Amino acid sequence: MQVEVPAVMRALAAGFARFFRTFAPRHPAQVIVLGFAGAVAAGTGLLLLPVATSSGGGASLLEALFTATSAVCVTGLITVDTPVFWSGFGQVVILVLIQIGGFGVMSFGTLLGVLTARRLGLRSRISAAAETKSGFGDVRRVLIGVLLISLVVEAALALILAIRFMAGYGYPPGEAVWHGVFHSISSFNNAGFALYSDNLIGFVGDPWICLPIAAAVIIGGLGFPVLFELGRQYRRPIHWSMNTKLVIVGSAILLAGGAVFLTVVEWTNPATLGGLHPAERVLAGFFQSVITRTAGFNSIDIAQMNPVSWLGMDILMFIGGGPAGTAGGLKITTFAVLFFILSTELQGGTAVNIFGKRLSRAVHRQAITVVLLAIALVTGSTMFLMLITDFGQERILFEVISAFATVGLSTGITAAIPPQGQLVLILLMFVGRLGPVTLGAALALRERPMLYEYPKERPLIG
Amino acid sequence: MQVEVPAVMRALAAGFARFFRTFAPRHPAQVIVLGFAGAVAAGTGLLLLPVATSSGGGASLLEALFTATSAVCVTGLITVDTPVFWSGFGQVVILVLIQIGGFGVMSFGTLLGVLTARRLGLRSRISAAAETKSGFGDVRRVLIGVLLISLVVEAALALILAIRFMAGYGYPPGEAVWHGVFHSISSFNNAGFALYSDNLIGFVGDPWICLPIAAAVIIGGLGFPVLFELGRQYRRPIHWSMNTKLVIVGSAILLAGGAVFLTVVEWTNPATLGGLHPAERVLAGFFQSVITRTAGFNSIDIAQMNPVSWLGMDILMFIGGGPAGTAGGLKITTFAVLFFILSTELQGGTAVNIFGKRLSRAVHRQAITVVLLAIALVTGSTMFLMLITDFGQERILFEVISAFATVGLSTGITAAIPPQGQLVLILLMFVGRLGPVTLGAALALRERPMLYEYPKERPLIG
Ligand SMILES: [K+]
Ligand SMILES: [K+]
Repeated sequence: MQVEVPAVMRALAAGFARFFRTFAPRHPAQVIVLGFAGAVAAGTGLLLLPVATSSGGGASLLEALFTATSAVCVTGLITVDTPVFWSGFGQVVILVLIQIGGFGVMSFGTLLGVLTARRLGLRSRISAAAETKSGFGDVRRVLIGVLLISLVVEAALALILAIRFMAGYGYPPGEAVWHGVFHSISSFNNAGFALYSDNLIGFVGDPWICLPIAAAVIIGGLGFPVLFELGRQYRRPIHWSMNTKLVIVGSAILLAGGAVFLTVVEWTNPATLGGLHPAERVLAGFFQSVITRTAGFNSIDIAQMNPVSWLGMDILMFIGGGPAGTAGGLKITTFAVLFFILSTELQGGTAVNIFGKRLSRAVHRQAITVVLLAIALVTGSTMFLMLITDFGQERILFEVISAFATVGLSTGITAAIPPQGQLVLILLMFVGRLGPVTLGAALALRERPMLYEYPKERPLIG
Repeated sequence: MQVEVPAVMRALAAGFARFFRTFAPRHPAQVIVLGFAGAVAAGTGLLLLPVATSSGGGASLLEALFTATSAVCVTGLITVDTPVFWSGFGQVVILVLIQIGGFGVMSFGTLLGVLTARRLGLRSRISAAAETKSGFGDVRRVLIGVLLISLVVEAALALILAIRFMAGYGYPPGEAVWHGVFHSISSFNNAGFALYSDNLIGFVGDPWICLPIAAAVIIGGLGFPVLFELGRQYRRPIHWSMNTKLVIVGSAILLAGGAVFLTVVEWTNPATLGGLHPAERVLAGFFQSVITRTAGFNSIDIAQMNPVSWLGMDILMFIGGGPAGTAGGLKITTFAVLFFILSTELQGGTAVNIFGKRLSRAVHRQAITVVLLAIALVTGSTMFLMLITDFGQERILFEVISAFATVGLSTGITAAIPPQGQLVLILLMFVGRLGPVTLGAALALRERPMLYEYPKERPLIG
């Protein structure tokens, strides 16, 4: 099985590239939506085959659609137990869908970023590289670059995990490699699917499993533009673009802050960290912090966590990772922009300057727009799910943000949500996966010069 | 008693005016904070007197402080039952504190608005009126104007209520007038204190009580600048300022939307609207919509409402009323600004134009700053209260927003929150009452021209 996957990937990458070359110049947003919808449809069809289920009885349409959407959107929410319900074939389908989805969002995000920079005439480091063809300028180069990084990181992680599964847990070689490959692809693509009914709770104290997975999750979540730039000039941080600086600094702050918060709140909770050795508690707290933005694995029981931890995780999930990576959420850069607007305003500044560069004023409005629409969607969906279920607001909000930010964590209610609610989650995953990136790019691409202005006026604020 | 109150008010207004003339030109924010803190301290002292309690046993410091803060900040959250716990003297103290608080926020908000307009050299209708002294330019005129509107509306409502209490419920004249005056002042100042243990649930189907109260609440919540402008040119809406247009249109949308939402969600809930005649259900739904922004009365049992209604009310409370009025929240204008930024951005526009006027770009950032800080404060407080209590997130969030937006509604948990939690609520009421208005004004007053700019750059959004 581990030899089939790259072949499938290559064929799909070629298909993607053709798809891109044909349509991308005209309607990038349409292309990505159609591509993802097609992948979901194909995945649903395959998962509907009786052979995809271990019982051979076949999945229901809703089960297949939910799983396919969750895999393509690299979310990881599940209504059926992956290792129990799906057969080996079904699991391979899920894995391929994850790889397509992760590859797709990473490539599309990067290409849209390049397109935006070009259209706006910005000679950022990325677009300069694109124009001189020295880096990843044209579509083919971006796709090859993404594929290369994906394969290298995934292969390395798969190897480490397979060795650990063999050496530490006595798996036979074939099973160890399969588990290594599955969890490696699921990690790098921030998908959160696992081949264990309790996800990764069995490995809560094993740094040889948790730390390599955390590393792959972080790398995938930084986003391709950041990885590309790090690869070219990792020794000269002063020359990094604003995007890379924001993602690196923001990730560090969120990882550390999330780890401290979750570890402290759960420290004495006997159902989560309380029963572990102190070193394991720190490891589990750190792992959960990494994984909440937005891989969606769990090494402690989410359902047993303090509701305050859920609320903290809501924030981490909503923020997510770096743009043009496999992480979801509204992206670190979006919130960094809001943070710097706030900070500038409180200090009485006029232009928003970040690391010695002025933040384009158009970006202020774009960040606000993306965040406001996301808040409206999350709030509306939460209300709807609260109306049709009896779960508390904390669980519903967690589920909705987890779907929208394509995290895949759950307080354990996903399967118990009625069909119309699961359909809402499916839509949230799809919109959450593609909405922010396409909206952000669409807004940036539509910027245009001012032709005339009305006289200025101001209402009272606050 | 009803003759004493205006005398007290006049004395206090004179004191306020002196206070203003002495300090306002230098540190308006300090003046308002000190003034409110002084009123809370004095109120706490008076409520600590044994004679303020009906039992004669005296209130605890926390009970007195909480009630005084709630009254001065015109919030209406209570930890003790107003009609049962406090004596007639205690109730008069509460009423005076409400009048001081409502008068204070209305005057301060208006004066800060005038100050802002002057400092920025904006010749808005309000500031023009101020400069020509035709309207309410100087401090004295603003205070007189606020006092006049307050007294006229309060007197009219008190009369209507007193007549209704006598004619419809057989109250003896003295009690009818006292109840009329108390609920009138509590209504116009959006305070939400009532002389009934079940607040206004006993009057749920009585339009002669509910509609006049709703009218006074709406008038008080529009804010003085709007009332002033309406009074001067109510027949020429085309000439209204952006502030007035936004408040009027926004209020209408929120009132209608809130009424429909609450009526629909609660229609079949037997514990709230379900048991009423259809006409009463509509009346109660409308009344609760009016009152949620931000008077804080209730004619149906909040604790028995659907948690989805609570979430909808969270939004209404957070938005609140018009600036420089007795309503709390972040103000309609703040959210209108965000809405128009969003709408402009989605339509691909460059300048944000509202009603044919361009919205000052500085206001964009000010609105975002106020909202982001409020969200951070509400989220942090919610986490803290969830940590120290066992109440669900929906109840805690409702309580926190109710305190911060100085609404005063509760799902019934206020008295059960431990002392350190009640202290957080006290701080939220104080900060929520004064924070947005002073922050908004401080930001606006600090605007300054750009001296130099860094080169422009942009990260990826979404
Ligand atoms: K995920
Ligand atoms: K109130």
